[in-house]
Amino acid sequence: MTRASTGLLHPDRLLPSEPVVRGIARELYNGVRDLPIISPHGHTDPAWFATDTPFANPTDLLITPDHYVFRMLFSQGVRLEQLGIEPTGQPLDRATSPEAVWQLFGDHYHLFRGTPTRMWLDHVFGELFGLETPLTSDTAALYFDVINQRLATPGFRPRALFDAFNIELLATTEAPLDSLEHHATIQASDWDGRVVTTFRPDPVVDPEFEGFADNVVALGELTGEDTATWSGYLAALRQRRAFFREHGATATDHGHPTARTADLSEQDSSNLFAAVRSGSFTQEQAELFRAQMLTEMAAMSIDDGMVMQLHPGSFRNHNQPLFERFGRDRGADIPVATEYVSALQPLLNRFGGEPDFTLILFTLDETTYSRELAPLAGHYPCLRLGPAWWFHDSPEGMRRFREQTTETAGFYNTVGFNDDTRAFLSIPARHDVARRIDCGFLARLVAEHRLREDEAMEIAHALTVDLAKSAYRL
Amino acid sequence: MTRASTGLLHPDRLLPSEPVVRGIARELYNGVRDLPIISPHGHTDPAWFATDTPFANPTDLLITPDHYVFRMLFSQGVRLEQLGIEPTGQPLDRATSPEAVWQLFGDHYHLFRGTPTRMWLDHVFGELFGLETPLTSDTAALYFDVINQRLATPGFRPRALFDAFNIELLATTEAPLDSLEHHATIQASDWDGRVVTTFRPDPVVDPEFEGFADNVVALGELTGEDTATWSGYLAALRQRRAFFREHGATATDHGHPTARTADLSEQDSSNLFAAVRSGSFTQEQAELFRAQMLTEMAAMSIDDGMVMQLHPGSFRNHNQPLFERFGRDRGADIPVATEYVSALQPLLNRFGGEPDFTLILFTLDETTYSRELAPLAGHYPCLRLGPAWWFHDSPEGMRRFREQTTETAGFYNTVGFNDDTRAFLSIPARHDVARRIDCGFLARLVAEHRLREDEAMEIAHALTVDLAKSAYRL
Amino acid sequence: MTRASTGLLHPDRLLPSEPVVRGIARELYNGVRDLPIISPHGHTDPAWFATDTPFANPTDLLITPDHYVFRMLFSQGVRLEQLGIEPTGQPLDRATSPEAVWQLFGDHYHLFRGTPTRMWLDHVFGELFGLETPLTSDTAALYFDVINQRLATPGFRPRALFDAFNIELLATTEAPLDSLEHHATIQASDWDGRVVTTFRPDPVVDPEFEGFADNVVALGELTGEDTATWSGYLAALRQRRAFFREHGATATDHGHPTARTADLSEQDSSNLFAAVRSGSFTQEQAELFRAQMLTEMAAMSIDDGMVMQLHPGSFRNHNQPLFERFGRDRGADIPVATEYVSALQPLLNRFGGEPDFTLILFTLDETTYSRELAPLAGHYPCLRLGPAWWFHDSPEGMRRFREQTTETAGFYNTVGFNDDTRAFLSIPARHDVARRIDCGFLARLVAEHRLREDEAMEIAHALTVDLAKSAYRL
Repeated sequence: MTRASTGLLHPDRLLPSEPVVRGIARELYNGVRDLPIISPHGHTDPAWFATDTPFANPTDLLITPDHYVFRMLFSQGVRLEQLGIEPTGQPLDRATSPEAVWQLFGDHYHLFRGTPTRMWLDHVFGELFGLETPLTSDTAALYFDVINQRLATPGFRPRALFDAFNIELLATTEAPLDSLEHHATIQASDWDGRVVTTFRPDPVVDPEFEGFADNVVALGELTGEDTATWSGYLAALRQRRAFFREHGATATDHGHPTARTADLSEQDSSNLFAAVRSGSFTQEQAELFRAQMLTEMAAMSIDDGMVMQLHPGSFRNHNQPLFERFGRDRGADIPVATEYVSALQPLLNRFGGEPDFTLILFTLDETTYSRELAPLAGHYPCLRLGPAWWFHDSPEGMRRFREQTTETAGFYNTVGFNDDTRAFLSIPARHDVARRIDCGFLARLVAEHRLREDEAMEIAHALTVDLAKSAYRL
Repeated sequence: MTRASTGLLHPDRLLPSEPVVRGIARELYNGVRDLPIISPHGHTDPAWFATDTPFANPTDLLITPDHYVFRMLFSQGVRLEQLGIEPTGQPLDRATSPEAVWQLFGDHYHLFRGTPTRMWLDHVFGELFGLETPLTSDTAALYFDVINQRLATPGFRPRALFDAFNIELLATTEAPLDSLEHHATIQASDWDGRVVTTFRPDPVVDPEFEGFADNVVALGELTGEDTATWSGYLAALRQRRAFFREHGATATDHGHPTARTADLSEQDSSNLFAAVRSGSFTQEQAELFRAQMLTEMAAMSIDDGMVMQLHPGSFRNHNQPLFERFGRDRGADIPVATEYVSALQPLLNRFGGEPDFTLILFTLDETTYSRELAPLAGHYPCLRLGPAWWFHDSPEGMRRFREQTTETAGFYNTVGFNDDTRAFLSIPARHDVARRIDCGFLARLVAEHRLREDEAMEIAHALTVDLAKSAYRL
Repeated sequence: MTRASTGLLHPDRLLPSEPVVRGIARELYNGVRDLPIISPHGHTDPAWFATDTPFANPTDLLITPDHYVFRMLFSQGVRLEQLGIEPTGQPLDRATSPEAVWQLFGDHYHLFRGTPTRMWLDHVFGELFGLETPLTSDTAALYFDVINQRLATPGFRPRALFDAFNIELLATTEAPLDSLEHHATIQASDWDGRVVTTFRPDPVVDPEFEGFADNVVALGELTGEDTATWSGYLAALRQRRAFFREHGATATDHGHPTARTADLSEQDSSNLFAAVRSGSFTQEQAELFRAQMLTEMAAMSIDDGMVMQLHPGSFRNHNQPLFERFGRDRGADIPVATEYVSALQPLLNRFGGEPDFTLILFTLDETTYSRELAPLAGHYPCLRLGPAWWFHDSPEGMRRFREQTTETAGFYNTVGFNDDTRAFLSIPARHDVARRIDCGFLARLVAEHRLREDEAMEIAHALTVDLAKSAYRL
């Protein structure tokens, strides 16, 4: 894939503007720009790579599924129906055409100025589709046509793009009840792209997840274990973990409201499980059960070697009328203050000394970078810091992450970049942003004589490839 | 008003120092420097513009009423009495002369180094009074004389300054019991300066406000409504809002301790009103009543089109002995941590989808910029972010605001600058600081190729004029 | 001490990279570089200066006692036993040789890239020991030998280093039960180095401190007061404070979990003291007792003139298995969110107006800089802000401190730099980092025309020497 500058993308974009620093940053960036992409944490659809079906059209690919895009449009008065998003169980009377939605998007593209979404999209438009004039009301129709035509060509099918993107490994995320059939198809195919799954047990370990009780029953049916008992439930989870391991999983992922962990006795755990399974439980019991399940998952990780990831602190589906009309993941998840120090102590006191245990922590609460996360990761051998996440997966967010964690945790207690995305086409853009920002940060340290240039180059490489591979055991 | 550099003010002040970025910033700034001032949120005294009386002397104008000034002097051991501030109900035995207070101020002027107060005052001294040598102990007497003489000239009377400052609109803030006579006088005058009021109901909606119960009685007398009943009380508020609308108000302003909102039933609201009106209520009842009143105010805003502003998070009158001696607003208000996500949900779930509703949020807790406020404003159509406020209305504070909100909320979910000041002379200085800092931020984005220069110019204009006009419906 | 650049240290290190700003910063730094070191808050061992015994070897001097060093090694899987740190009461079977520990340290030195520890150590290696090649696995043995040889020479004995470091005053920290014999020895010696003690009463005022009840008994024995009574206990504390004053103390230091203060009646205090002395008390009672003791200490400070220092917000000994095996101070203290506004109100309402009272506040929670600490210090005459502390005693941490406190509190409500260290050799490095970062911050203000250069020079001097002397009454 050529990387020549286009009208949309300047080759020095995101590098610090001061000439000396920029010069150093450019050199560091040139050293990592073409390294393969390691994507150990994301949410793309494995069906794409199993079936290799062409993508439908620009709107269905780039707008409808991307909550970064439609949350901004929604915030300025565009209704989701106008974007072709259908209320649950109520297909829109007159389907909005993809072309019309794209035009509406072009009309509002100025809203994204200063946001990472704008940078990712311009990268896709410029690098992938060769577009050179900015997207506006006037150029929207042209954009739609150009992208639409390209999507129909062989070079733009999922596997071809995966290869062109130079992706060495891509992890997707599935729930324990998933059959992993697409991963099996990929494994059995003659395509050598490496797509692995990740074990995300929220639907069967969070009593407040929609359908939890039914999910636990289904888990029993799937595994042949008696999930009406605590021991059977744990055995079923162990079995599914093994199944995920067979489909390439090296990690689990836990999306809890808080970072709370617990270390209850067998009896207390069993009683608590009975309560939450019955459907009659308090919020505190739900919270305590999730807390205990993190510790149980840690115990299983120590047995089977899977790396744990914890993503707390999102208030999901904050807009209740919207949730009732459109369901989850509609851009209405809002971060809340998150506490880690007391919350993680039960788990850490039990497993913090295990030599082969790894727990990767993420946050949406940047105040914890310097106050809690870097001090914790700078002490506990099992802890590593995930990169700036979600709302903070952005130039300023990444810069703050490095500025606020490095002095206490160093670089080597971090795990490289995660793209964390559903938007497959944006993956190279996102990794490119991370490489540029990290190189800019390193260049400043070099220019301020806090680091030698050879060290900075080594670190840039580590942040791009090595740390992800070692942390995720790839 | 000439803007030539003086000994106190460098023409490039506050622009980033790196030459390339400064060059871009200067160009952006030149494009907005002379645009009119829109001041939709402030606390100047409408009597000034109604009577157009000359200001008394430098001390009464610039020191005695400005809590930014005397809080710093007080923090270094200057007593308020030394500044001529009189204890409540106890006139000072021997009045401190304005000249002596000014000299004391000059003796301590170095304390303000690095603060925005210093920049605002130097702007006033240099641009308005043509002073060129720094204020020190030695020059204090000269300063007093020069300023004093100018204040006696016609060009320094309130209306002349208003016109010279190129103010297109100035909003003041009044309580519901205010007669708005000064606004009526201004409206009836042949002066065409546009001064409007803002509806600030704290004294009649906050049960913990001094004199709340009496205020509610007075509200009934003023409106002829039976404010002993919940429905009469709401009707009285509606009537006063209409009265404020007639005097130009397009916005309401709410200064609550927290951002908590509630959505109680009619019956529960009525019972709660009875409790708080009786004077016998708990802190929790007071908090819940304020919470419900925000939702009631939102309902009225949807009816009458007034924009709502919410300023939570100040611990008022922290220094109790000082409060007892001197009363409120003596520089002893201290910010506290503030939560928005759960707090606003009741109101947002009820009115978040109303197409014509606008709620502008402010904060004194910068941790909420990236964690709560930008994600909320980047989703809810009714929400907009007010600018960096009060202690954060400063170069570094404004820079943090942009760095921490733009990537998630964009520029177009913000509302431009508010000066929020009682210090009339500082208004041009404050707007000038905001324009410089915003242009500096935009220039960095341009220099880092994250934004094109034509886009930056468009945004600079929007931040200076357009967004304030549209958000405040001017 | 020569300060020529070596292979490890660039003369412009830590100064901003933009040439104009760097030029200004360099000039400011040159003006303060050689000023004497005032170290009013630290934790070195007074025995060093009393006995003037040579330091044993590089490992015992630079690694084993420094929790900054071993926490990072531990976080990457190095066990404390490998560093020669012995479990409590269990001497290691086969002592690890200092050479072997040093080699292990050299093997892992890359972990410190980007951390202040790396800068401090390189400063020591380069400036003090004349080493010019970086520390790596390959050079570790050479390093050990060079340092070891130098330590045996007269110029590297504690008093000679103290003099060579140009330390004007060094404060250590002792508990009330300490005999202060080393300070007496130093005072009686013919060496004119000024080493003073600091009164740190945690072991006798914190009911949750190990051995509290016994400590209170010992306090009685030491003073002849009846510490079984509240009044006797207070009298004993007063007596020890006087004793510390005689050994040079001008300050007290309080390391509480929170900033909570209380203002109980005599009777309630007495009852609470009886409860905590009995050993049978709740966590809330312990917290309330600490809170009351801060107010009691403030009362005594007003009597005897000692400056109070409060360091809240560290969750001590977070890793319980490690604490049980190795005891306290093993790098497992983790910061937590800290609240000051409500917490300090009882003390401030009682003593906030006392003209001769000084309370210096520190924090591990950077969110409080702009939200709570700067507004408090910018109002209360008794309050001053301590420098960026512990995990934040770092280039980025110091920069954030200035950026987030100056605009509200100014420079003159801060107290200069504290090194806060046990690592004697790192003292010049730490003060040098602070001088460079402060000069860099000032240089940016000058380059942005927010401060004149003569003012910046005056402030640089104040931050280096004057403010520490006045705040600590030296």
